[in-house]
Amino acid sequence: MGRSLGEGGTALMERLDILKGLAVENGTKIVLLVMDGLGGLPGPGGETELEAASTPNLDLLASRSDTGLLEMVDTGITPGSGPGHLGLFGYDPLKYQIGRGILEAIGVGVEVNPGEICARGNLCTWGEGDLVLDRRAGRVDTETSSRIVCKLSEKIRSIDGYGVRFYPGIEHRFVVVLSGEDLNDQVSDADPQVDGRPMVWSRPLAPGAEKTALLINGLIRKVRETLSDELKANGCLLRGVSGTPGIPLMPDLYRFRPAAIATYPMYKGLARIVGMEILPAGKTIEGLFQALRANWAAFDFFFVHVKYTDSRGEDGDFDSKREVIEKVDSLVPEVLDLGPDVLAVTGDHSTPSIMASHSWHPSPFLLASSLVRPDGSTSFGERNCARGSLGIIPAHKLMGLLLAHAGRLSKYGA
Amino acid sequence: MGRSLGEGGTALMERLDILKGLAVENGTKIVLLVMDGLGGLPGPGGETELEAASTPNLDLLASRSDTGLLEMVDTGITPGSGPGHLGLFGYDPLKYQIGRGILEAIGVGVEVNPGEICARGNLCTWGEGDLVLDRRAGRVDTETSSRIVCKLSEKIRSIDGYGVRFYPGIEHRFVVVLSGEDLNDQVSDADPQVDGRPMVWSRPLAPGAEKTALLINGLIRKVRETLSDELKANGCLLRGVSGTPGIPLMPDLYRFRPAAIATYPMYKGLARIVGMEILPAGKTIEGLFQALRANWAAFDFFFVHVKYTDSRGEDGDFDSKREVIEKVDSLVPEVLDLGPDVLAVTGDHSTPSIMASHSWHPSPFLLASSLVRPDGSTSFGERNCARGSLGIIPAHKLMGLLLAHAGRLSKYGA
Repeated sequence: MGRSLGEGGTALMERLDILKGLAVENGTKIVLLVMDGLGGLPGPGGETELEAASTPNLDLLASRSDTGLLEMVDTGITPGSGPGHLGLFGYDPLKYQIGRGILEAIGVGVEVNPGEICARGNLCTWGEGDLVLDRRAGRVDTETSSRIVCKLSEKIRSIDGYGVRFYPGIEHRFVVVLSGEDLNDQVSDADPQVDGRPMVWSRPLAPGAEKTALLINGLIRKVRETLSDELKANGCLLRGVSGTPGIPLMPDLYRFRPAAIATYPMYKGLARIVGMEILPAGKTIEGLFQALRANWAAFDFFFVHVKYTDSRGEDGDFDSKREVIEKVDSLVPEVLDLGPDVLAVTGDHSTPSIMASHSWHPSPFLLASSLVRPDGSTSFGERNCARGSLGIIPAHKLMGLLLAHAGRLSKYGA
Repeated sequence: MGRSLGEGGTALMERLDILKGLAVENGTKIVLLVMDGLGGLPGPGGETELEAASTPNLDLLASRSDTGLLEMVDTGITPGSGPGHLGLFGYDPLKYQIGRGILEAIGVGVEVNPGEICARGNLCTWGEGDLVLDRRAGRVDTETSSRIVCKLSEKIRSIDGYGVRFYPGIEHRFVVVLSGEDLNDQVSDADPQVDGRPMVWSRPLAPGAEKTALLINGLIRKVRETLSDELKANGCLLRGVSGTPGIPLMPDLYRFRPAAIATYPMYKGLARIVGMEILPAGKTIEGLFQALRANWAAFDFFFVHVKYTDSRGEDGDFDSKREVIEKVDSLVPEVLDLGPDVLAVTGDHSTPSIMASHSWHPSPFLLASSLVRPDGSTSFGERNCARGSLGIIPAHKLMGLLLAHAGRLSKYGA
């Protein structure tokens, strides 16, 4: 690999360092309305879902907004839900990565807080000594495993001063969360990989991870003791240890009180990891906007997440995705009635119905405030945004723009 | 401002590492059609060469493509042929650099493969001991030097287990290529710089280059022995040692079978260095497209290189450059007939006829696939592309976009 030309120079300042240094508190309100998988591709009629949708409120908003496209991760890269949202929250998804284990855990409703680590567990059958007879305990049924994991929850609240929380899953699966100081997820799986082999214990994979490997192994021994009277599911394996090391929290970075209004566990979990308060929001799109109104006074920044645009896109159902967009459009006045200082509307990635999957296509966005240069757009859509006043920008730069429009960033340099 | 907030987090991932991690194989075909120096500037009629050209096929293609401009190296930087093409192949030209020596060598048809190094040689006249009497052997004539270099080719096939290949040049000049493990081009010239001085031998300039310096010096001694019966040209100097260290190969990065169809040695050489197969292509523009058809089944990615747009631009001949573009346009249906999944058309830099040289102006491009958001362009030209749906993007990001449109990249993150 070639030499870096920059090696001799001064270090480039990190954008988040800059934002943190400039952020100031004030009384402004910011709303980030995310329609998951909003971006699309032309359907049979030549228009995208968003372009085809009847969106009088968003169109009017676009006519007095800055618009553009967000590149969520990098050109041509299709983001998963984790990287897509990290970008919207201001974190470069190529720098900040959330482990697959923790994403799976929060996706099923496990609450993981900053600094905690989680692992996927298997209930298993142990024989003599270290021998693991069956890595899935004969695929124990969910009812039995729930009972057993509840027993673990009752008996094992901590280990070596670290908090332990168990969450039951399907059949032999469960999740465990460890909380305490200096946890490090760079440890190997505690898993023999094959039935009938001796246990292979967790090892540290990086300096500083020794303690966590010991905790993982100690916890397995404690589970073994606790389940010694069980016949089949008398032990466990722990795999895919992952945490959220090094992700700075939004309240510290941006000096505001952020709240998340979302219906799906994954998005609540992501928001929790970056330091947002999670507000109760029910299950409907209307519920999101009711929760916004109910909590308007208590927070400065609101992340409102609509899941169903993505779901219908993933279904390959062009018309239903369009209808979800129309539904959201009809509720936009609810937001405007609250008088936000800054309102941005976008997606966390594209989910074109014709692909029935996430895609790399940049995400249309609009940014409404009293400090914009409206670009002549008269409707909100991918092709209009491609000609928008803000061009194509990396998604992780949007947050700074929202802060700026809210008067929450002081000047850089004298 | 203090520490980078990212210090506790993970390091920024390199784009090529990401692409390599996401790339999957499938049966899709990608064509990258490069008209060298395609971009231009307005001529007397107010239009660029591309805008003035009658290009019905490219215009139709543009109307169902994504379009934009490629920044080849960086804003305002005029690229040579090496950086221009490295960018198109996905390598950031500010990070990956190919030595001038190797570019000169491949420019005259020397075949250099990944991992090999080459050096420019002078036949010279040696006196007693280490004394170099004439660094150019009295500017020996090309016929004589060809005979002598052929003799070297016959007598010296290897040294210390490393392969040696000689290529004759004009007058006293020749090129030598060394092949084998762990070659390192960070060595000084073996050249006294001035006639009548003792030889200055090659020295390592970096750790790990000791072996290569010894090989270079050993080769010079072996040449001296082999030519001991020559009167004038009885030895050689070796200078400008350069290789392709650390450039990852396209087949490994992108998991496809790439082929190059080009008429000029420089472009074949560049393609060889990054791991493409070089296909026989004749000397005409028609020949390029015949070669494409003939080899369609055997490869996944085709780099088709048209040289003459650049040549006519360098001549300052606006009309002839326009005519080359029109010629290529007339052959575009030949490509479309093959049914590529993705077709991109662009240049490796601009060569405006009114400048008669390479320039920094970004290069227009179109990308046709079934997954585009056509931006309303009805013709292919610089000013239309400047308003295109993809904006101005770094050229080295195009390759990832081609892979994405070909369904060859999996999702980033869960």
